[in-house]
Amino acid sequence: MDKNTFAKTPPMGWNSYDYYDTTVDEKAVRANADYMAEHLKAFGWEYIVIDIEWYALEAGSQRARYQYIPFWQVEMDEYSRLLPDPERFPSSKGGAGFKPLADYVHQKGLKFGIHIMRGVPRQAAAEHTKILGSDMLACDIADPSNICFWNPDMYGVRPELSGSQAYYDSIMALYAEWGVDFIKCDDICRMDQRSAHEEIVMLQKAIQKCGREIVLSLSPGPARIETAWHYEKYANMWRITDDFWDRWDLLLNMFERCELWQGHPHTGNWPDCDMLPLGQIGAAFGHEHPTNLTFDEQITMMTLWSIFRSPMMLGCELTKLNDDTLKLITNKDVLRLLPSSDGASQVMRNSDQAVWKTFDTEDGSLYIAVFNFTEKPAVTAYDPEDCTCADPDVTAALNKPCHELWTGRAYASLASAFAGITASHGARLFKL
Amino acid sequence: MDKNTFAKTPPMGWNSYDYYDTTVDEKAVRANADYMAEHLKAFGWEYIVIDIEWYALEAGSQRARYQYIPFWQVEMDEYSRLLPDPERFPSSKGGAGFKPLADYVHQKGLKFGIHIMRGVPRQAAAEHTKILGSDMLACDIADPSNICFWNPDMYGVRPELSGSQAYYDSIMALYAEWGVDFIKCDDICRMDQRSAHEEIVMLQKAIQKCGREIVLSLSPGPARIETAWHYEKYANMWRITDDFWDRWDLLLNMFERCELWQGHPHTGNWPDCDMLPLGQIGAAFGHEHPTNLTFDEQITMMTLWSIFRSPMMLGCELTKLNDDTLKLITNKDVLRLLPSSDGASQVMRNSDQAVWKTFDTEDGSLYIAVFNFTEKPAVTAYDPEDCTCADPDVTAALNKPCHELWTGRAYASLASAFAGITASHGARLFKL
Amino acid sequence: MDKNTFAKTPPMGWNSYDYYDTTVDEKAVRANADYMAEHLKAFGWEYIVIDIEWYALEAGSQRARYQYIPFWQVEMDEYSRLLPDPERFPSSKGGAGFKPLADYVHQKGLKFGIHIMRGVPRQAAAEHTKILGSDMLACDIADPSNICFWNPDMYGVRPELSGSQAYYDSIMALYAEWGVDFIKCDDICRMDQRSAHEEIVMLQKAIQKCGREIVLSLSPGPARIETAWHYEKYANMWRITDDFWDRWDLLLNMFERCELWQGHPHTGNWPDCDMLPLGQIGAAFGHEHPTNLTFDEQITMMTLWSIFRSPMMLGCELTKLNDDTLKLITNKDVLRLLPSSDGASQVMRNSDQAVWKTFDTEDGSLYIAVFNFTEKPAVTAYDPEDCTCADPDVTAALNKPCHELWTGRAYASLASAFAGITASHGARLFKL
Amino acid sequence: MDKNTFAKTPPMGWNSYDYYDTTVDEKAVRANADYMAEHLKAFGWEYIVIDIEWYALEAGSQRARYQYIPFWQVEMDEYSRLLPDPERFPSSKGGAGFKPLADYVHQKGLKFGIHIMRGVPRQAAAEHTKILGSDMLACDIADPSNICFWNPDMYGVRPELSGSQAYYDSIMALYAEWGVDFIKCDDICRMDQRSAHEEIVMLQKAIQKCGREIVLSLSPGPARIETAWHYEKYANMWRITDDFWDRWDLLLNMFERCELWQGHPHTGNWPDCDMLPLGQIGAAFGHEHPTNLTFDEQITMMTLWSIFRSPMMLGCELTKLNDDTLKLITNKDVLRLLPSSDGASQVMRNSDQAVWKTFDTEDGSLYIAVFNFTEKPAVTAYDPEDCTCADPDVTAALNKPCHELWTGRAYASLASAFAGITASHGARLFKL
Repeated sequence: MDKNTFAKTPPMGWNSYDYYDTTVDEKAVRANADYMAEHLKAFGWEYIVIDIEWYALEAGSQRARYQYIPFWQVEMDEYSRLLPDPERFPSSKGGAGFKPLADYVHQKGLKFGIHIMRGVPRQAAAEHTKILGSDMLACDIADPSNICFWNPDMYGVRPELSGSQAYYDSIMALYAEWGVDFIKCDDICRMDQRSAHEEIVMLQKAIQKCGREIVLSLSPGPARIETAWHYEKYANMWRITDDFWDRWDLLLNMFERCELWQGHPHTGNWPDCDMLPLGQIGAAFGHEHPTNLTFDEQITMMTLWSIFRSPMMLGCELTKLNDDTLKLITNKDVLRLLPSSDGASQVMRNSDQAVWKTFDTEDGSLYIAVFNFTEKPAVTAYDPEDCTCADPDVTAALNKPCHELWTGRAYASLASAFAGITASHGARLFKL
Repeated sequence: MDKNTFAKTPPMGWNSYDYYDTTVDEKAVRANADYMAEHLKAFGWEYIVIDIEWYALEAGSQRARYQYIPFWQVEMDEYSRLLPDPERFPSSKGGAGFKPLADYVHQKGLKFGIHIMRGVPRQAAAEHTKILGSDMLACDIADPSNICFWNPDMYGVRPELSGSQAYYDSIMALYAEWGVDFIKCDDICRMDQRSAHEEIVMLQKAIQKCGREIVLSLSPGPARIETAWHYEKYANMWRITDDFWDRWDLLLNMFERCELWQGHPHTGNWPDCDMLPLGQIGAAFGHEHPTNLTFDEQITMMTLWSIFRSPMMLGCELTKLNDDTLKLITNKDVLRLLPSSDGASQVMRNSDQAVWKTFDTEDGSLYIAVFNFTEKPAVTAYDPEDCTCADPDVTAALNKPCHELWTGRAYASLASAFAGITASHGARLFKL
Repeated sequence: MDKNTFAKTPPMGWNSYDYYDTTVDEKAVRANADYMAEHLKAFGWEYIVIDIEWYALEAGSQRARYQYIPFWQVEMDEYSRLLPDPERFPSSKGGAGFKPLADYVHQKGLKFGIHIMRGVPRQAAAEHTKILGSDMLACDIADPSNICFWNPDMYGVRPELSGSQAYYDSIMALYAEWGVDFIKCDDICRMDQRSAHEEIVMLQKAIQKCGREIVLSLSPGPARIETAWHYEKYANMWRITDDFWDRWDLLLNMFERCELWQGHPHTGNWPDCDMLPLGQIGAAFGHEHPTNLTFDEQITMMTLWSIFRSPMMLGCELTKLNDDTLKLITNKDVLRLLPSSDGASQVMRNSDQAVWKTFDTEDGSLYIAVFNFTEKPAVTAYDPEDCTCADPDVTAALNKPCHELWTGRAYASLASAFAGITASHGARLFKL
Repeated sequence: MDKNTFAKTPPMGWNSYDYYDTTVDEKAVRANADYMAEHLKAFGWEYIVIDIEWYALEAGSQRARYQYIPFWQVEMDEYSRLLPDPERFPSSKGGAGFKPLADYVHQKGLKFGIHIMRGVPRQAAAEHTKILGSDMLACDIADPSNICFWNPDMYGVRPELSGSQAYYDSIMALYAEWGVDFIKCDDICRMDQRSAHEEIVMLQKAIQKCGREIVLSLSPGPARIETAWHYEKYANMWRITDDFWDRWDLLLNMFERCELWQGHPHTGNWPDCDMLPLGQIGAAFGHEHPTNLTFDEQITMMTLWSIFRSPMMLGCELTKLNDDTLKLITNKDVLRLLPSSDGASQVMRNSDQAVWKTFDTEDGSLYIAVFNFTEKPAVTAYDPEDCTCADPDVTAALNKPCHELWTGRAYASLASAFAGITASHGARLFKL
């Protein structure tokens, strides 16, 4: 299997984290899948992803003190493999795991994904439990000094031991049985621990062995540009920043990251700007709220993700989407960039604005995106004589007509489009 | 002008540094140009490049103490522009500059290049000399704290001043008059000083204004992978290591650097492994000697540079080439990779060996290079079951016939070719 | 000569920088010396120090653009030794140097100091001038890559060359002739360049040879705690921060630095908190103003400098001192700590407050200083049961009577003194 | 209690680690105590210290794979406090802990010490066990991301929780009951984890509360010179390097560390050069061997430790001491430096030699130590004219008679002593 065929275009879907944190349950998953199938599937949205701590058992008052409760109980099979919390995921009872829920999602014409942490459970190491297909025990392959700094669930494994690959093989075989289409592996992408480099390889090796085309997504960022080739060889998506939330400073920072990673998105390889904190979010974090991004900032975000070709995962509770947000995430002209553009690059960026360009792979047309970073509405500064921003493609297009994809408005020329006003923190996306 | 058209394929030529250090003169340049025209041009070699200190005047006994003599006299015109030392380059007298020598090289059907240091001459700043096309003086644009740490000739300029761009425009206009085809700019690639980032832009801007297609090569490395996009936007070549010499440890290290930069070589954009220290080198460094690389190491070097598509600049005195070396640098089957391959990637690398692959852009065939890093002859370890090295293209080719490009030997299958012996520190390059 | 005898107690004096920047002249020096002799000498103040650029010639409009004008003219003798600008220091004309001015200061019963930059003048290197007592030229000993990053006047020297020591010997011999008592050497203390380590040794060696007891003060900080022993071996004062100005954040930061350097002040060795930006300052910086420190912050500063035993150099124009400031800097009970205390240590420090203690070397009494970092008046938190702040000496003193040295107020016990209110950003200093 | 009185002079003793690694048992401890009482006590040696893993239960074949066996069983009381392995320390059975063994050591007129790891046992956190004197559980105070990188036994505690101090109080109370005189706390000195700073305070606070004078020794180094004041406030000894073993390169490196820490040893505060790997060592590491240091290197080590006033802990099996080594560690004239000298400083150090000096606090005499780092016997280079090494005390002593403390040989003058030969890697120690 060629891993690049698992995600030929940037994956689009929903992820439970931004709304449900560590508390997502079966009911919520089904409701969001129902909504996606009915309202979003037609626009390319297809993944339903259950994020962190689906294996963690009831923790009572500890939940108020910790996001990730240390030394608490997880659901595990005899082979040290984590299983869904049966209270939160009733259909998993009796050893069914996520299979019934995956089936449900598949019947809707959607795809099913889960989050995992790098390594073997801390509880498995403490209890000396077994590993399927190996004589080694969990306590053998667990490396006690190889830990995640923000989550206490797992130990990294010792890559030189055969039991470590056997463990990854065993969990991936289970996920394939369940019908998992997408794995978001955490504590691995920025390689805080040396073994993460090898664990990425072990994950892909396990996917190849399991016989199911499972998209491999790596978190959290920032990914290391100096091992871009490694991500490209073994994974499908990798986060290029730490967690992204609904704050302008983080959105502004994403332009630096996209500058850094420009040229890297291509078939099966998707540098990942992280989930879209649109709509209603934050509930299980104790402060449910509509996104703090202004509508113009949301347009900026959608434009950047689209032209850069980042994967797009909705973080909100879908059933609470309002009409404006729904319109924003179902603009076919804009979303078309994900499957049908290529070769995006930054034309220029300074503290006031950025300009990006890309090409349509089907009709060959040129797209130009302009972004206004200032606190005021502004027109685009573009001087074809100024080498720091002059781009032959853009310069050649200045006299050509274009239209803007968010408003549908037509312009006699790109030059006149540039002369139009971009809202503060906003963006415009032109097609020529 | 699109700078990518200036160097559509990796430049190949000769550079004076490895043999002549800071002492190259007109006679030597002409002799090497003569040799290249007669013996090498047919194989793609075409650039004649004069390296560092062509503007430095006679320094007597200081030469023994310093490679770069501090506070010495340089040849300069009234506009702070460096000129060739008239003693070493007699044809430059009377204000002719390098024009007569460039003409000579052009008449041979070759191209002419020179080395420059980033910035404005220290002597110009001390003497408060003028800048063509600006009211500012050299002492205005020179930034006294922006210096090269290994060469005392220049000050970096202040990018925010118009006089700085005027200075770069003025030198590039002069070089265009002379007929320069290639600029190797030094103290700029690894950006030891912040302004180097802007000075790269100023250089390309000056090239665009001068109206001549001048290839821009940046030194010394290591270039920064995190600004790969910047080099790609404004330059044609950039050094990916510090100076490379005829030592196995440096050659071995180049595999790390090529791993890092794989995927980046493409039309007009050439990460540069530095000059080839083959043949007779080191004369002006006080120890003229045949390269210290064994013949197998030379094959490794030529194979890596070829499959990676590095620019190739011969560092030796061409008139002293022996037959073996001449054969090495005139192997058409190998050199074909520079203009006619694309998409090279590392299949695997460990402490014992590396495997690379690429494709021929004309006949579509697959190339596989294997490298033996050990102290003994060895066969290639390649296990299609082992995900850390298994590559679908290579695996699919195991049963296919191939031949080796250095020996011309045919193999019934790639698998049998792998089973053949690669010399210690040697390489073999298969075409399927 | 034992360098520790040159500054048995922390030096106290006046420095031209905070008011005059690079423009100080003879008239100003004489006026400040007059004032000191009349009003401050009796309280221990004795040094008159001329700070940076006394050798720089008239620069006209450049002064508005640069603090340190690049590539400008300096006054120099035939041996590459800087001399006072004769326009600004008329008494120096005819080769007299600073001797007449030093004589004037000495006649007042005061001591005379000057500022120098590490190294040999840039102009001397460019002009290939001579060095007294050596066959080498300035351009021989100057290292072109060894520069100050903020001042363009000098090159660091090559420590391995005999001419380098000869140069330092030659300037120190000149300063001894002039009657210099104090050298503030700049660009040396934080060792931005490797040779600074050796240049400190060369300076002390030159002092030993010159036969005059010249106090050696090193700037700018932060000095490196890991070479504390080196400063202690060769210098008398070394700056423990970068330039200190009249800002609360910088004053607050000084508590971190004093924490770091506690235990190091002792006879002949004075970690230096930098000049006191009291009174009227900033004139030649273009914004003459009374200190921005509140009166309580000034008390905090004076208390910290006193208990830590930092050297004290007044940065203001003395003739413009108002009565309050004059009282602040002539409090004998507080200033007594400089010559007559020892063994200061921090009792505790957190984000709200700090407590220090020390002992009187003559009457054996205990001093306790309390500092309030908060934005409100506050009482001192001190719990003898809390090991993070409990100190046997302080605890034992809680029941003992004391008085406060700024107000003269008496307290029945240290505990009751603690219970009194310390002003926001203020300090109180108790003697038991 | 003033912690500085717990160790008025540098502690001297025996530590089980270098010979027994993690396997020391009661029989070995008694045998070494017997030997010390009989042969060494008269020379100042008095501490018997049981090093790491005395609480680890039988681990069978795991011992061959790991020095510190992950996820294995430790002996613990109901309050999460580690107890001696009853198999290895039979007298500890029935809840007696180390009391019987400490009593035995005390009866010999010696002092008793144990090693601990910073934090609370991993097993206690996993099992949610109690903490004496607190409502919190071990799993509450354990911070899962605060771990030792080389030993899997413990978690660091959360300093902001009252249960954390309660835990330290509870173990120190137990140790006081047992009669412990010396604690070597590990994973704390170089502060790999931020909480180590606070845990040092908590340890001293617990010692103050327990009412017994327990010397606090911190490991492993290198300690941070920038928090020298913190160690000095709360501890008695702190390691200035990582583990020291019987290798010349490590011994040579100790001169750098002593240079750094010179000036810091004083009453109750002992920067620690680590155990003396003399005699027979390495048994439980699988390669019992006599020290690899030559006899001259051993003299160098003893001389440096003595003049610097490092604590001295013998790492060898005492019962296997040969006569030469015994003589080395019972030289009264040399060992006198530990209790009766002060103010040691490095006179000079280069790549060939070092010279140190100190003074006798009783008879006021001067000691000079010279060290030869070269591969050949050599005489001491000391030029009173050379400021980089000239020292007034040494210079003044050049004409005075002296004798050498290892050989007893008398010299007519220090100058003639310098002119004598110091063995390669050897040292000589003169008393004037």
